[in-house]
Amino acid sequence: MLVRMRGFPRYTRLADALNIVLSKVEQLGSEVMSFDQALGRVLAEDVVSKVDVPPFDRSAVDGYAVRAADTFGASELKSVKLRVVGSVDIGITSKFHVRGGEAVKIMTGAPLPRGADAVVMVEHTRANDKKIEVFAPVTPGKNVSTRGEDIKVRELVLRRGQQLRPQDIGMLASTGKIRVRVSRRPKVAILATGGELRKPGKRLGKAEIADTNSYSLAAAVASCSGLPYRLGIIPDKPEQLRRVLRKAVNYDMMLTSGGSSVGEHDIVPDVIAGLGKLLFHGVAIRPGGPTAFGVVEDKPVFSLAGFPVATLVAFDMLVRPALRRMQGLPADRGYPRVRAKLMRKVSSTLGRADIVRVQVRAEGNELVAEPIRVTGSSVLSSMTKADGFIIVPEDVEGFGEGSIVEVELYR
Amino acid sequence: MLVRMRGFPRYTRLADALNIVLSKVEQLGSEVMSFDQALGRVLAEDVVSKVDVPPFDRSAVDGYAVRAADTFGASELKSVKLRVVGSVDIGITSKFHVRGGEAVKIMTGAPLPRGADAVVMVEHTRANDKKIEVFAPVTPGKNVSTRGEDIKVRELVLRRGQQLRPQDIGMLASTGKIRVRVSRRPKVAILATGGELRKPGKRLGKAEIADTNSYSLAAAVASCSGLPYRLGIIPDKPEQLRRVLRKAVNYDMMLTSGGSSVGEHDIVPDVIAGLGKLLFHGVAIRPGGPTAFGVVEDKPVFSLAGFPVATLVAFDMLVRPALRRMQGLPADRGYPRVRAKLMRKVSSTLGRADIVRVQVRAEGNELVAEPIRVTGSSVLSSMTKADGFIIVPEDVEGFGEGSIVEVELYR
Repeated sequence: MLVRMRGFPRYTRLADALNIVLSKVEQLGSEVMSFDQALGRVLAEDVVSKVDVPPFDRSAVDGYAVRAADTFGASELKSVKLRVVGSVDIGITSKFHVRGGEAVKIMTGAPLPRGADAVVMVEHTRANDKKIEVFAPVTPGKNVSTRGEDIKVRELVLRRGQQLRPQDIGMLASTGKIRVRVSRRPKVAILATGGELRKPGKRLGKAEIADTNSYSLAAAVASCSGLPYRLGIIPDKPEQLRRVLRKAVNYDMMLTSGGSSVGEHDIVPDVIAGLGKLLFHGVAIRPGGPTAFGVVEDKPVFSLAGFPVATLVAFDMLVRPALRRMQGLPADRGYPRVRAKLMRKVSSTLGRADIVRVQVRAEGNELVAEPIRVTGSSVLSSMTKADGFIIVPEDVEGFGEGSIVEVELYR
Repeated sequence: MLVRMRGFPRYTRLADALNIVLSKVEQLGSEVMSFDQALGRVLAEDVVSKVDVPPFDRSAVDGYAVRAADTFGASELKSVKLRVVGSVDIGITSKFHVRGGEAVKIMTGAPLPRGADAVVMVEHTRANDKKIEVFAPVTPGKNVSTRGEDIKVRELVLRRGQQLRPQDIGMLASTGKIRVRVSRRPKVAILATGGELRKPGKRLGKAEIADTNSYSLAAAVASCSGLPYRLGIIPDKPEQLRRVLRKAVNYDMMLTSGGSSVGEHDIVPDVIAGLGKLLFHGVAIRPGGPTAFGVVEDKPVFSLAGFPVATLVAFDMLVRPALRRMQGLPADRGYPRVRAKLMRKVSSTLGRADIVRVQVRAEGNELVAEPIRVTGSSVLSSMTKADGFIIVPEDVEGFGEGSIVEVELYR
């Protein structure tokens, strides 16, 4: 064993770190909004239909409303003749009563007239003045959408926790639920720490670099439906950092990047410990090891590493599940997962989870994943070139070439 | 064969219909915007770095900048002693020149002082007044991020057509690209046709139904980054419809729902043909068969079926790829795809593609897909209950229980 003079006294395993984070976040409150603005929001209530859908028996096709029994025996060779006594239109209640030997012309969506119990498709008829010939029999109920066939009044149609998709917005419209209760979006304050940081696009001094993380983190927060608030760049001065972290009370979460390691300027974990409680410092993942987490003013505060990829990987592993839980979603990363064949072996260190960025492509009938070669955690291009990532868990030393691995896809 | 008196004279195959649609849409123009607002937008230019990243050689760890050769032979049993001549800080260019036998204390991210060619991690040292003991050798370049290691000036970092993710926003910040050219979002007019339609939440008359489609279509347009403009409900009156469809010139695309079949009130295709050119009417898919497409004022106009599921399925099959192409994305549906085992056989009709909604869940180590039982295309709940869909192509009669199928996942 090497002499360890400083450095992280203990790396927390990823699963343990995530459990600690999740023990400090809970679902936020809710708000009521108009259903047509709610795409992507998460339902905070069960939705029960106020109506039957469809609200009346209606024709599912263009054709003729009939008494099914009248058509029995009809065939291409031997048609049944019926008398057309009128037509019913969409949007208007019919006054007809269909009797034996009669038919009423009907449009798709029009209410079925009384007396009729089925609709013959227009394609199976031949019209002839006031008469039609029917060339195929129908059974009772055929081509009729009955009242409540799709949804019955008081039926549960959407569940709490559903993230609303286009079809769900349609369901809200269709069942008359025009005001919906959805989870509040988490307000997330973001600060970049480091005296060497400059606003992107500014000319850099000799030892200066552009602030990357406050922008990529703001985008990451937005990508999981959080509301990012960039509070700017804070130099590595404990007093200034304390002043800003006290603002945690105004947000649902705070993210800092930089100053998370154990060097002399890596002050964020110390400041968190001073203002509130530091719950872990150092996570057994790579990249993203120098990650700390605690609570200030009862609000979760993350100290993420300064290197851009380390920041975003730690965000995916620990922050994204927390932001999802706050909105009533499962506390996972929410990325779609696919299985792919690994094109090159990846090695890891026992006791540490490695997050390996990969490119994914189809080869013939299968997906293959090509690990991206990287030299350090500072290499953001490893992530912009990637389609997703695989996780090599703590208890394995890697995956061999040709292994089938689970890839989580960025989006 | 049944006697076919009316109905669609010819159903266009899905692939042919899509080709016709795509032949009428092209990538829209672009606009320049601030990089930090561009999450989810599609790059309309290649991005080339304006700077080296990192912009100078810097330390990747906390430790001591040294001349690597001085550490050769160091071990846990036999340390090498070096004289600490100062320290370099983040954000400040060092004036030091490290000579043989010397070390300079250095923080992660600080510029490497001249003379030094490697950094010894603090964990592998013991400090002692103005001296350190080094317990492990380093090779030249060890723990140093060299200038341009991640990105070199003038290197292509992001390609035209990339939909910007959080890491890409970070890359734009990091390379000084603060104004980006992205594809314009398509403006899509949406109208619902049908005298029987009422605004959602209003009390319905006896033969009336709530307008569902203009809301679900607006959400669907937004879900693929289009800008929806709901123009309201238009009764089935050709003159009114003509007046509204002439507004096509103001939008990049028009979507109508209802009035797309061949009944007497299904007037949209006729109006399209009258004002411009109708390119197909009737697609061999289920649901969504009564779909028509044409151009008016050189703009693509879709006539989608009135039944809510038929509308959204046809949107996925034909409109979504078109909206993606308009933004410079691949002209596909853009849904993530997974393979799953089919839990129940599905049947289809030869010559028609069936879009079967499924629920997907993990069972042990595999995904399984459970088809949702439906009675008609009006059953919106078949889509709100679904996690995704499978397509049974025209040339097969179905898939057997236990088949491995490709599921596209809604999101």
